[in-house]
Amino acid sequence: MSLLDKIDLPKDLKKLTDTEIIELAQEIREYIVDVVSTTGGHLAPNLGVVELTLALHTVFSTPKDKIVWDVGHQAYVHKILTGRLKEFKSLREYNGLSGFPKRSESEHDFFDTGHSSNSISVALGLAKARDLKKENSNIISVIGDGAMTGGMAFEALNNAGALEKKMIVILNDNKMSISNNVGAMSAYLNRVRLDPLYTKRKEDIEYMLKKFPAIGNKMIKVADRIKDSFRYLLVPGMLFEELGFKYFGPVDGHDYNALKTALNNAALINKPVLVHVITEKGRGYLPAQMNPDKFHGTGSFDVKTGKTRGSSTTPSYTKIFGDTLVQIAKKDFKIVAVTAAMADGTGTSNFAKEFPTRFFDVGIAEQHAVTMSSALALEGFKPVVAIYDTFLQRAYDQIIHDVCMQNSHVIFAIDRAGLVGQDGPTHHGVFDFAFLRHIPNMVIMAPKDENELRHMLFTATSHNGPIAIRYPRGNGLGVPLDAELKNLPIGKSEIIEEGTDLTLLAIGSMVSVALEVAHKLKDKCGLKCTVINARFVKPLDEETIINACKHTKGLVTLEEHSLQGGFGSAVLELLSDNQIHINTLRIGLEDKFTPHGAVKVLKEEYGLQADSIVEKVINKFKEKNSILNKFAINFSGRK
Amino acid sequence: MSLLDKIDLPKDLKKLTDTEIIELAQEIREYIVDVVSTTGGHLAPNLGVVELTLALHTVFSTPKDKIVWDVGHQAYVHKILTGRLKEFKSLREYNGLSGFPKRSESEHDFFDTGHSSNSISVALGLAKARDLKKENSNIISVIGDGAMTGGMAFEALNNAGALEKKMIVILNDNKMSISNNVGAMSAYLNRVRLDPLYTKRKEDIEYMLKKFPAIGNKMIKVADRIKDSFRYLLVPGMLFEELGFKYFGPVDGHDYNALKTALNNAALINKPVLVHVITEKGRGYLPAQMNPDKFHGTGSFDVKTGKTRGSSTTPSYTKIFGDTLVQIAKKDFKIVAVTAAMADGTGTSNFAKEFPTRFFDVGIAEQHAVTMSSALALEGFKPVVAIYDTFLQRAYDQIIHDVCMQNSHVIFAIDRAGLVGQDGPTHHGVFDFAFLRHIPNMVIMAPKDENELRHMLFTATSHNGPIAIRYPRGNGLGVPLDAELKNLPIGKSEIIEEGTDLTLLAIGSMVSVALEVAHKLKDKCGLKCTVINARFVKPLDEETIINACKHTKGLVTLEEHSLQGGFGSAVLELLSDNQIHINTLRIGLEDKFTPHGAVKVLKEEYGLQADSIVEKVINKFKEKNSILNKFAINFSGRK
Repeated sequence: MSLLDKIDLPKDLKKLTDTEIIELAQEIREYIVDVVSTTGGHLAPNLGVVELTLALHTVFSTPKDKIVWDVGHQAYVHKILTGRLKEFKSLREYNGLSGFPKRSESEHDFFDTGHSSNSISVALGLAKARDLKKENSNIISVIGDGAMTGGMAFEALNNAGALEKKMIVILNDNKMSISNNVGAMSAYLNRVRLDPLYTKRKEDIEYMLKKFPAIGNKMIKVADRIKDSFRYLLVPGMLFEELGFKYFGPVDGHDYNALKTALNNAALINKPVLVHVITEKGRGYLPAQMNPDKFHGTGSFDVKTGKTRGSSTTPSYTKIFGDTLVQIAKKDFKIVAVTAAMADGTGTSNFAKEFPTRFFDVGIAEQHAVTMSSALALEGFKPVVAIYDTFLQRAYDQIIHDVCMQNSHVIFAIDRAGLVGQDGPTHHGVFDFAFLRHIPNMVIMAPKDENELRHMLFTATSHNGPIAIRYPRGNGLGVPLDAELKNLPIGKSEIIEEGTDLTLLAIGSMVSVALEVAHKLKDKCGLKCTVINARFVKPLDEETIINACKHTKGLVTLEEHSLQGGFGSAVLELLSDNQIHINTLRIGLEDKFTPHGAVKVLKEEYGLQADSIVEKVINKFKEKNSILNKFAINFSGRK
Repeated sequence: MSLLDKIDLPKDLKKLTDTEIIELAQEIREYIVDVVSTTGGHLAPNLGVVELTLALHTVFSTPKDKIVWDVGHQAYVHKILTGRLKEFKSLREYNGLSGFPKRSESEHDFFDTGHSSNSISVALGLAKARDLKKENSNIISVIGDGAMTGGMAFEALNNAGALEKKMIVILNDNKMSISNNVGAMSAYLNRVRLDPLYTKRKEDIEYMLKKFPAIGNKMIKVADRIKDSFRYLLVPGMLFEELGFKYFGPVDGHDYNALKTALNNAALINKPVLVHVITEKGRGYLPAQMNPDKFHGTGSFDVKTGKTRGSSTTPSYTKIFGDTLVQIAKKDFKIVAVTAAMADGTGTSNFAKEFPTRFFDVGIAEQHAVTMSSALALEGFKPVVAIYDTFLQRAYDQIIHDVCMQNSHVIFAIDRAGLVGQDGPTHHGVFDFAFLRHIPNMVIMAPKDENELRHMLFTATSHNGPIAIRYPRGNGLGVPLDAELKNLPIGKSEIIEEGTDLTLLAIGSMVSVALEVAHKLKDKCGLKCTVINARFVKPLDEETIINACKHTKGLVTLEEHSLQGGFGSAVLELLSDNQIHINTLRIGLEDKFTPHGAVKVLKEEYGLQADSIVEKVINKFKEKNSILNKFAINFSGRK
């Protein structure tokens, strides 16, 4: 790795010859494949932008110039070139390097990202700030063609295109979102890329224009007058030109010299420029090149074969959801499925294969996905909208205004709820109870295991109104799956164990933890706990909860969710409304953004593992001798 | 009103001659001006679509065909033509006709709306449902050029354009949002409308093509080959064609016959069609035509003069906010202001005049507005983002991901918080505490009056991090304004009165109500109340609240907000965390959508007025004799 070792900061790139840069690209690819094969991560997007990143850092000078990476999962090369070569080995580990840009890591990172389609807005804000300060620098946003389908990218394009601000948008066109890209814009880009007429047309028009002078005076005038109009035919990215951007491209995103030329030209323009760069996801590592969606985000894998390592035999929640959806949809013809560019990720690709006419991938467009689903529901269909928890935040207003206000029967399958691990704070799904439970008409469920997820999905299809199921990333608990799907009564919880000391009221992934806590409390202090699987965050099972409070001396709520406004908070409202006085302890996530790291590690560090909960319970309740006498005795007697 | 009286349902239109329809248009205009001059409402948008609505209902047959009105404030003509002529007089009154489409009102309304930019998503959902059911009908979305700047409209266009579904999008181009429209799309539409080159170009090309055959064989082939390309030059709405829509237009939106022809042609096409209709806001009523933004939404007015009636002398919160912003910005050069097409509505138009380079109207694009502001903040500016409470819901993810995760100093000025009155459920701002308070780093304030709003705005500019101020629609309390602006300590409340029986802990608009309640409770039952102006929803003033709970026997929280997850809920969390046992009563809005009506009426009906609160307090606490002995005595002794 001789060349790579010479690069500490981007300025070092400028000492290399073009030939050396091309060698360096190869070294970077090998290094990234090597590290990611161990750590897991977003492999294919990064292999696609090696030359682009090198060209950006050769032509521009960060931190004076600013590069904003849309989504940010393609910033590995950038990280390696900006002083993080060695730390890169700790990629996505707890306390290690983030898989996304992080201002806390480097002055070369300008915005912490993770969600898509926001980079043009950020770049425009940076450009406005630059102009207000009367500074002079280049602001560059790098956005994928997938991210370009997100509405806010258009909002920003629309705003920027009218302003004549100097800024550069790099459209990193790899013909994909995570899966194949969809939509009219994608089709348009495809025409721009491939249209054989384009070159021909250019030749034709040039030929025609050359002929004009021979034709006569009137024709000359006409030709002059319309020459200007011909730019519509000669510029392939006319759509962007109409939106106020100077268009450059298409440029081969793996031709370093062509990229350098395009970027240098773009930097000369004093208005918004769009540079259309064609890249290939996974470029240079054959397994990723062949299966760019599989290698979009990957676990650790064997470099030689490209095979991912040690996958569990327990099926994931996602898979169980997908299989069950197909099973139900075979009998219920009203079920349709909607995804926002995440057919594989949400487990709906089998549904897509089985029922192609009932499956809708709308692109990275959560707002549209939710509203369109509501219209389908009003027409008698049962749309199942499968969106990751954190991305559903994008459709918050649509859930209120377009779904719940119409009380339409939209089923929200909220995957990746709770802590998701290595992708970190931008991807944890820890606000959904809080942003959903105040919306009238909404029903919110969370299963204790993958078997219950199946019943909840079935229940959701039988309910008539907006209903959400949130379930975790990763593998289920490995419980047996019931043959028969059953309807769970809305708003009824399940009492799993009964005891007279403490009530452990848990939701979703925390039910199994609550059981563990109960058993540990019994072993450690002889406490007898009632353990309740709440099943519903809304409506809450008022009767069971009140009854449990009356028959025990303390209440612990457990959720893999923010404590502010979450499940425990809803339970406190219920207690207040019913004037129930009981000592309460809410277990969940504190009021801060949880960083990245393995889920197991995060749960330990952030207090969601049984042992730390047991400790918190003891600390909380042992002080309250006057109220929990039996506790006091137990604590002193057994410890 | 002879013709209008003949129209009960759209089918009756089909009996009229074209001349009669044009007469009818005039009658409708007069009727709308007449009613709205009394009820108030969205005048200008409706006067702009009289001919369009008549043409739509002549060419199409609702409810078989479906018309989706974007935003929906332009649906008055539609309501009048679909069986609601007489009820129209009750427009916007409590229990009267809604100012927006409502499925509960008529089978001719297909979607309840109020927020912008969602109609193409709805139409696409309806079109998909139609095709799945193998039915045959027309689905029409009517969307303004302003609403077209909202990202979700683009998400839907992008999705629809690629699908070849039969659907019609009417682009109602009145060159305005509520104020003048901004952005590249608007500039593009302007070129399409006005470009004198367009007609010339068309003639030129036709001339040239005619000449070709005389030129020689090679040229003929070339001409043939590129003839197809010329559609780019001949179709003015090429941008939409590139996005997969067949473009018709521009059509004069006040030429009934031209509209009918265009719509009939559009109905023949078996793929997505965009009909570009040019309308004039306020058309036919001179005061509205001259001042379309003032008459976008208006209170009652004098038909002859166009002057609005009886405006209060007390300044509105909006005005106080706007004035104070200018005052602070004169000294603090880092302050910039951002609005999403609402300069007038949010009171930022004076700022725009004083500091044009520091003011950014981004169009109807809340997501972009928030994210761009965060970038400005990271560069050292202090963006004040002024957005109505209900519309800020659109930027929920951006507040989390792009602002709070960066901990950037964005100031959210949340106008129209609480019940807004006649615009109803789509416009009430009653979820903001719940959707903001779980976001780490966020500070949330609400002033008790307009004077405190000024100090809060000043405080927000001194704080370093995301901070929100929510304040009501309408006039302030008329309190004197302090000459000096002061910094309020973050997270500190204000004790207004002290008593030993009950604590009334109120936020924002409910502080004055709490005082009234306290005085009534004293008069009625001799109860002595502590009244606290909470000022902050986050962080809460833990010390003061706990102390008040210790020194009183019951706690009442008061908020003009949903009870689920709101301010009271946050207080319950605090009590739970500190193991404070006190009887609590939360006053706020129940878990349902609040309908439209005058704010005063709604507050009475939905329990936010002092008298009903007094009653609730008595009912709640008198039962609890064992805990509140003094209460019991007072209740029995005085009642």
